[in-house]
Formats: sequence, structure tokens, C-alpha cells
Amino acid sequence: MQTAYLDNSATTRVCAPAAERALYMMTQCYGNPSSLHSLGAEAFRELETSRRAVARLIGARPEELTFTSGGTEANNLAVLGAAASRRREGRRVVTTAMEHASVAAACDELERQGFEVIRLAPGPGGLVDADQVERACDSGTVLVSVMLVNNETGALFPIKEIAAAVRRKAPRALIHCDAVQAAGKLEIRAERLGVDLMTVSGHKLHAPKGIGGLYIRKGVRVLPRAFGGEQERGLRPGTEPAPLIAAFGAAAEALPPPAKQEERYRELRRQLLEGLRALGDVRIHEPASGVPYILNVSLPGYRSETLLHFLAERGVYVSSGSACSRGKKSPVLTALGLPPEELDSALRISFCYENTPQDIRQLLEGLAQARESLIRVR
Amino acid sequence: MQTAYLDNSATTRVCAPAAERALYMMTQCYGNPSSLHSLGAEAFRELETSRRAVARLIGARPEELTFTSGGTEANNLAVLGAAASRRREGRRVVTTAMEHASVAAACDELERQGFEVIRLAPGPGGLVDADQVERACDSGTVLVSVMLVNNETGALFPIKEIAAAVRRKAPRALIHCDAVQAAGKLEIRAERLGVDLMTVSGHKLHAPKGIGGLYIRKGVRVLPRAFGGEQERGLRPGTEPAPLIAAFGAAAEALPPPAKQEERYRELRRQLLEGLRALGDVRIHEPASGVPYILNVSLPGYRSETLLHFLAERGVYVSSGSACSRGKKSPVLTALGLPPEELDSALRISFCYENTPQDIRQLLEGLAQARESLIRVR
Repeated sequence: MQTAYLDNSATTRVCAPAAERALYMMTQCYGNPSSLHSLGAEAFRELETSRRAVARLIGARPEELTFTSGGTEANNLAVLGAAASRRREGRRVVTTAMEHASVAAACDELERQGFEVIRLAPGPGGLVDADQVERACDSGTVLVSVMLVNNETGALFPIKEIAAAVRRKAPRALIHCDAVQAAGKLEIRAERLGVDLMTVSGHKLHAPKGIGGLYIRKGVRVLPRAFGGEQERGLRPGTEPAPLIAAFGAAAEALPPPAKQEERYRELRRQLLEGLRALGDVRIHEPASGVPYILNVSLPGYRSETLLHFLAERGVYVSSGSACSRGKKSPVLTALGLPPEELDSALRISFCYENTPQDIRQLLEGLAQARESLIRVR
Repeated sequence: MQTAYLDNSATTRVCAPAAERALYMMTQCYGNPSSLHSLGAEAFRELETSRRAVARLIGARPEELTFTSGGTEANNLAVLGAAASRRREGRRVVTTAMEHASVAAACDELERQGFEVIRLAPGPGGLVDADQVERACDSGTVLVSVMLVNNETGALFPIKEIAAAVRRKAPRALIHCDAVQAAGKLEIRAERLGVDLMTVSGHKLHAPKGIGGLYIRKGVRVLPRAFGGEQERGLRPGTEPAPLIAAFGAAAEALPPPAKQEERYRELRRQLLEGLRALGDVRIHEPASGVPYILNVSLPGYRSETLLHFLAERGVYVSSGSACSRGKKSPVLTALGLPPEELDSALRISFCYENTPQDIRQLLEGLAQARESLIRVR
């Protein structure tokens, strides 16, 4: 049975160059990057090569990139580390109701620490706009955290406009952007977006799980949350996970140009939407502005989890809401105000650059079979 | 040129079964362990298989092991998470002046948070004993953190006796033990040692860098330091680094029995000590009680770093102090009160189960050549 892996927003398969690089680091270039001898120095050089590759991906300088153990740690460091560094300047934090759990829960923690957190609800188009953010900010706002691409709906937030609005209204605020679902797929230039902090994750772009990065704009200070050695300029102590870091760089280098990827995603999406409409009674949740590689749909009358298992038995992998929620109701889809029958039957289909029209056909066939075989619940 | 890697306390080469397991997880079993479909479930099963293997290594139940991104994160979680959970019961923390930076710096952070930290200096034998710890504890002591094996000297601390003394004197204290330099080499049963928390690291036992674990005795509560999803029962959110976790389990399974390892280490150490003594004017820093796989020596008149590079050019890898200190003066050796000429010329030689008598010969030849070629500084 052929595999049609269409759950790339949950995680991706590690690409061959990244896997080979990790293997090389594990078995050949295995020195501790902090060791003074040549085996350590070789490993250290690999870190810096990778840092340049990943920085290039988001239009940053290498020294602006700090490696972390993943997107969650980077988001935590950004939100909690930035708020801690600006604690004396004010107490307001502005974010959205659509953020990933690692931003949302970090904001909950800020609330426990005495910060005032404003969580903006999306409009009917599934987005938060610059006006909303500007109205929520005051001069005592120390942090604004808004994602670039929503992991469940694919909504593309107007970060550049949001950042400009924040600079006008809250000049003391640091601006963080969770770009985990965008990096590697969209053309990103951190500086042009105007943000201070930006999160990326390796395993969403064909590097292994366990590695991520935080862009920290030159001159911006966040307080460390981990304590120990001097690694990552003291911001992220602990022996560097050299195999993962090297693989992250290799995966970044192996990515097709965003424009080429986009072309493929648009074709796959066209094919998918056409096929879904032919199925009948499929609700498509397209945000007012979104990326082509994430599509959230509902098949009222069929529970997400049932569909998901039915499809998996046929080699087709998709997600119900986000993988992070493990069966819990998605707060993001809830924030969108979907009716219960659409919430219960939501599926997320997410592409990577390796997906083909055959994958889409396999998914559509699976859904057609589900319609024939499964009993409608309502 | 043959490699004689004798820097295994800095990091180890990943063993073949672990590297293969990581490769399999990266390219075949690549689902997100939180994904509800079968690809996710397969990855999740691998995590649990590995958790059992690593737990077995330290005589723990699988549910008592939380995976972290490494020893530093585990030490931070233990020290800061335990102190935070007992904050209302007292403010004293007792530790030693010999701890790894990730414990020492976490204790500095506790001091900034208002805790009173007692750092016990080692006696002439390079150890801290149970009496010292007992005297330092009071009824308001909430945390005691003492390592099992020192990373620079190989000193073996009497943890069982220390734990028993702490229970008598400070019944509210949680007891943490950094076992990074012991796990995989010594027979460890966490429960018999009587500790509440214990840190292990993958890359010290032939698993990749970037994975560690914290043993948390059943019923003991530490507060999380990371916020996000529900992974690792909410204590360590973020997509699990499944390739690293699976490799950790494989490496644990591949370890020769501790008794067999010890036999080899004792033979290598005998050969090494004999050879060193034959060299003349080598100072050997053996603690009163120590493990056979770490040896710290000084060659007065030759700077550590010069020796280290000289040896590396001959395929021999050892360390000056610990790899974490990157050329800084070792606080551990300083705490031992070594004279300056011994501090400046200290080398650490550390074994793994793959080292051979040939490695020792190569090291001894290198040192003999150094004596002939290098100019004495003092």
C-alpha cells in the first residue's frame, strides 16, 4: 500500500541529506563542540555551518539565531524571556486566541506572574488584523506575540502591518512571531517583517524532531530560562545536539525555493478542492487570507477520529485539528465559531514539497469510500 | 592514524544500534507521537519501549522517567522545579562546590529567587560526606543536590549515606542526584540510593547528544519549567524528539553489564597509572573514593591546552578539565586546592567500554613525545 502522508503540519519525514548528516555527526564527527581538541572543533564548525543555513532561511544573520530543543522551547524563551527582560517597563502582553499551545500556555504563565494578557479573538475571516492589535496595545505593552501561519487553518497573519502598528502604539514592546508553520515554505525575511523574535522548528521542514531556533534581532535582549554552560552564548546551555543542528542545516539547504513550492501547493490544493466539492456536503474552512499548503475541512456527520483511522488504514495520513491537542477540542476552531457538527468532523490536510497528485487522489478515494462505508452520526 | 578517544566523560561516539534506531525513526517511523493515526501511534510505542529501557538502567519504573533535551535541562528541572514546588516549606538548599555547571548555575538562580544556598567544599579526599551534608541541613531545607560521580575527578559521592542523613535531619527536603557521569557505567538503583530525583544523559552513554532524562520518584512533585502541550505528562511539552529517545533506549540496551565494564576499566587504569608513573613527574589526582573510568592528572610545566592539541595531532583525545568550561579554570579543581602548576597542566582521561590497551599505549606514547618535544613553561 502506498503512503499518502498529508499531515506535514504535524511533522515531516526527515529528508535524506538531513538524515545522512545526522548519521555522520553521530558516528564520525562525534566530538563535544565545547571540547578544545580537533574533534570538538570539527563539531563546532558544523554547528556554525548549520547556523548560517538556517539563518539564511529566515533572512537573519547567523549570530541572530539561537538553537533550542524545538519550537516549544523557542516560543517559551521568546514569550517568557522577553517579558522578563521588560518587566520594569510595563505589564501588558498582547496575543491572539489562535496561538500554538506553547505560546498560549506561556502567556498563561505570564498571567500567573502578574502580567495582563490580552488574547485577541479572530474575526469571521479567521484572522486578527493590525487595527485590532493596535487598539489592544498601550504604552505599557511589553510584548506582542502573533503567529505567522496558523497551524490548524493555514490563516496567514499580516505580521508586517501588525509590527508597524505595534511600533507606533507601544514603542517599548518586543514583537514575537511564531513562524513554525511558515519557515521553509514561505519566503521570510525577519528584518523586513519588523519583528524582534521569531520561532522556527526543524521537524516541520524535514529536519529531525528535537531541534528548533529562535531568531533574536541584533540588540534585543531576552533573559535566559536555562542555566549552566556557555553554549549558545549562555542563552541555551547544555551540550549542543550537534547531529540535530547539522541535520537542521542540511534540511534547510535541501528545501526547494518557496516560489516553486507554492506553485506545487496551489496545484495540489486546486485538485483537492475540486475533488472535495465533487464529494458533496464538505465544508471548507478557508481563512480570508491563507497559505496554500494547509486546508481545514469538515464532513458533517462523520467524526474526525473515525475518518482519520479509516484513512490511515488506507495509507492516508491527515490530522484532526492539531497533533498537539490529542483528541481535545481545538481552541482555534472553537475560536472561529464553527457549529458543533463542523467542529466534530474537522480534518486538517497539510502538504510538503514531496506530495504528489497521486497523494490527493488517494485521499479523495479514501474519503469517497468513507462516505460509502461509514454510518453518519447525525 | 588510529583514533584513541579517551574523552568519554565529555561525550561518546553513538553506538551502531542507537544510530540505526535514530535513522529508522527519522526516515521510516516519522509520525508525530501525538498524532492519532497509526503512524503517530507507532512512534509513541517507540517512546515507551525506550522509556522502559532507560528506566531499567537506573532501577526505576518507566512512569518515573521524564525525557528532557539533555542533562542540563534535567538538572535545571530537578533543582528549580523541586525548589519551586517546596517553596512554602522552607528556603534552604544544600549542594556541593563540585557540581556540574547546570546544577551550580541553577542554584545561583535559586539564590536570586531568595533561597539560601549552602555549597559544601570537598575535603582533602575530594569528597563531601554524609556528616557534612547533615550538618548543613536544617528543618527548613527543601532541596539537597549532590552528584554521584564528579565529571572532572571521578570522585564517587556516598549518596546512599547522604540521602539517609538528609531524611533524618531535613524530612521536607527533596534529594536530587546528578548521575550523568555514572549512569550506564555503574549499577544504579534509584530507589536503593534513596533519592527523589536523578539526572541521566544520553550522550555520555553512546546515545546522541540532545536527550536526557529525569527520574522523579513516584509521588514526588516538581513544577514544570516549560509550557505547552501535554507531552511527558505536561512536565516537558513539545513534540518528543522520537529519534533521540529511541536511540537512547537502544544505547541503554547495548551497554555491557557494569561489572564487565568495571573489569575492563580497572585493567586500563592499571596500565595507564603504570605508564604515567614511568614517565616521571606526573601528579595523579585520585579522590579518596572514585570510579575507575575517570582519571585526572597533571604534568607540571606543560600547559593543558598545549598537551591536548599535541595529543590530538597524534589521534589521542583527552580533556583539560571539563569540556563545559571551554578553557576557563575549573572550579572543581580549584575547590580541591591544587597548586597553580597542577591546575594549569591538568588533563582528564576518561574511558568507555570500547577503549582498548592500544588506546592507552597511544596516549602514553603521545605524552612521552610531548615531554621530548615541548618546552617546559616553568
